[in-house]
Amino acid sequence: MIDSFDPAELLRPDLRELVPYEAPVHPGAVKLDANENPYDLPATVREEIASLLRDDPFNRYPDPLAIELRQELAAYTGLPAECIMAGNGADELIQNLMLAFGGGGRVVIATPTFSMYRIHAVIAGAMPVSAPRRTDFSLDPEVVIAAAGHPATRLVFLCSPNNPTGNVTPPAEAAAILANTRALVVVDEAYLEFGGESCLPLLEGYPNLVMLRTMSKAFGLAGLRVGYLLGSPAVVRQLLRIKQPFNLNRFSQLAARAALAHRAEFEALIRRIRENRQALYDGLNAVPGVTAFPSEANFILFRTPLPAGDVYHGLLAGGVLIRNMHGPGLQNCLRVTVGREDENRLFLEKLKLILGG
Amino acid sequence: MIDSFDPAELLRPDLRELVPYEAPVHPGAVKLDANENPYDLPATVREEIASLLRDDPFNRYPDPLAIELRQELAAYTGLPAECIMAGNGADELIQNLMLAFGGGGRVVIATPTFSMYRIHAVIAGAMPVSAPRRTDFSLDPEVVIAAAGHPATRLVFLCSPNNPTGNVTPPAEAAAILANTRALVVVDEAYLEFGGESCLPLLEGYPNLVMLRTMSKAFGLAGLRVGYLLGSPAVVRQLLRIKQPFNLNRFSQLAARAALAHRAEFEALIRRIRENRQALYDGLNAVPGVTAFPSEANFILFRTPLPAGDVYHGLLAGGVLIRNMHGPGLQNCLRVTVGREDENRLFLEKLKLILGG
Repeated sequence: MIDSFDPAELLRPDLRELVPYEAPVHPGAVKLDANENPYDLPATVREEIASLLRDDPFNRYPDPLAIELRQELAAYTGLPAECIMAGNGADELIQNLMLAFGGGGRVVIATPTFSMYRIHAVIAGAMPVSAPRRTDFSLDPEVVIAAAGHPATRLVFLCSPNNPTGNVTPPAEAAAILANTRALVVVDEAYLEFGGESCLPLLEGYPNLVMLRTMSKAFGLAGLRVGYLLGSPAVVRQLLRIKQPFNLNRFSQLAARAALAHRAEFEALIRRIRENRQALYDGLNAVPGVTAFPSEANFILFRTPLPAGDVYHGLLAGGVLIRNMHGPGLQNCLRVTVGREDENRLFLEKLKLILGG
Repeated sequence: MIDSFDPAELLRPDLRELVPYEAPVHPGAVKLDANENPYDLPATVREEIASLLRDDPFNRYPDPLAIELRQELAAYTGLPAECIMAGNGADELIQNLMLAFGGGGRVVIATPTFSMYRIHAVIAGAMPVSAPRRTDFSLDPEVVIAAAGHPATRLVFLCSPNNPTGNVTPPAEAAAILANTRALVVVDEAYLEFGGESCLPLLEGYPNLVMLRTMSKAFGLAGLRVGYLLGSPAVVRQLLRIKQPFNLNRFSQLAARAALAHRAEFEALIRRIRENRQALYDGLNAVPGVTAFPSEANFILFRTPLPAGDVYHGLLAGGVLIRNMHGPGLQNCLRVTVGREDENRLFLEKLKLILGG
């Protein structure tokens, strides 16, 4: 027996103030908080998964290099497989990037943006440095270049379309940053299929570019955690040094292959989500006092005249879960995922009740 | 365009010498290299998985806290769910432990053992420190306690049954270490179901104890990457700070629950593997010049009179893949997984050809 033991005393001192990512669970609520695809997988994809599943030897470790999946991703992206790395969600790839390159250095993040960049930077022992966007959320390349100019900068994170603001960074602006830094520039294109121009064509001229993508959004596989990274073979080789050997399980590899093989069927769903986005945007801007920001993604950021916390809790009481984004640069802002038609209608109805009251 | 860019120059300097874990792929070979369960899942488990699968909304993120799975694990282990954390394989939990507690400090590892402890320590920015086992591979508690005595020590890693040596650390010896260190002591019990006494009863008296377990071995789910950690709620709470929010995908959570609900059916397979282990051990020791070491796990370490590399390649040429463990403390040693009866027979036959030639 030992007298007393407090693991908090053993924790790395620089992690003591870390606030973990929150993923609140509210069973029964209409879920418009996590930018998921609201539509179930096409039946043909489900059938193909079930059929691939039948003979799959779960008792064997997965392919550490996800060779078959990366071949499908190569066909989808037009890049050779050696430029592609698969991860247990893009989250794992963010962590790999931070651990391989960030630790002990600085990581520039164009804020406001996805909170996990900062969290993973801190976990990896890197110093996150904010490069603030303009008040309209557009990127200021000069601000990013200046922040990246510190000799300790190893990584720059841009998200395009940006979560949670929805706007896209034009490739020409990304190129201006790429041309003026020795750091690795990571463009997170998780929401690319919903709109905006990809930075992928820049890869040929800029070996310091890396893109992140995911099967969690347009391909509706959030539950299976399949992200991928696109970059030069030299960058991929460095990341493979620290990749967990069997990071992506057999089933997720198999299901992602099935989804990619049927990608035409997802295009109809993506079109529908874009139509719903337009209706939701118009509906939001028609609510008195609300400002919705234009979005190329499957979510919309909006500002309300009431405190965001009141709106969040009011909606939750009405059975609708969205995300409260209130914080620096996002005063009284909330983010709503583009859901199914009925979900969006219910959300707008409840919002009007709260703001009209 | 930028003139030149070498990502190796951006890599964290302390990672430059890191040799990643190797998982060679040899399609068609009899696979006795990765300590997998050689038997496919029981048909009833496959059916239950297929049935749970039918309605599962893959488009939704997984439960970040794996609540239902942890309830099943609570029933299996006898511990409350708040003492349990699920990971994307035990690998991820090792990484979480290293990142939360190890970084910037020392990690004592009782060697020779599973190579990932050292790799994850280096990735997390911790200094791995070896506490060598005796020549018979038994742990020397005094050596471990002395190594752990350095004020920078944060973690101690013991593996029991130990991979690749197969022997168990008696709980009394683990208790001696637990009572004499302020570090967190991690006992990796990945192979526990195949033999040996668990350290679990020590948890009540020693809040600085953590155990790792897995569904990859006895439960035959290596392909799905489900590991879990057992420890005090205070330790689990610290680890949750840095856990990736959606680390374990929906399908793996669902399949692991199905396997645990049918655990009686795995017991017959485990018995069979233990019988096969005895036959394989006897068969190995009957090969002239070979010394097999007693094992409580689903693999056997053995020493050969020829260089281990020659034996490894000879077996591979004969269609049998095992693992060459030659290295410090393991001169000319190889590790063979206990396979199905026919696989073990083929392995012994090929080994005799190589050593008898």
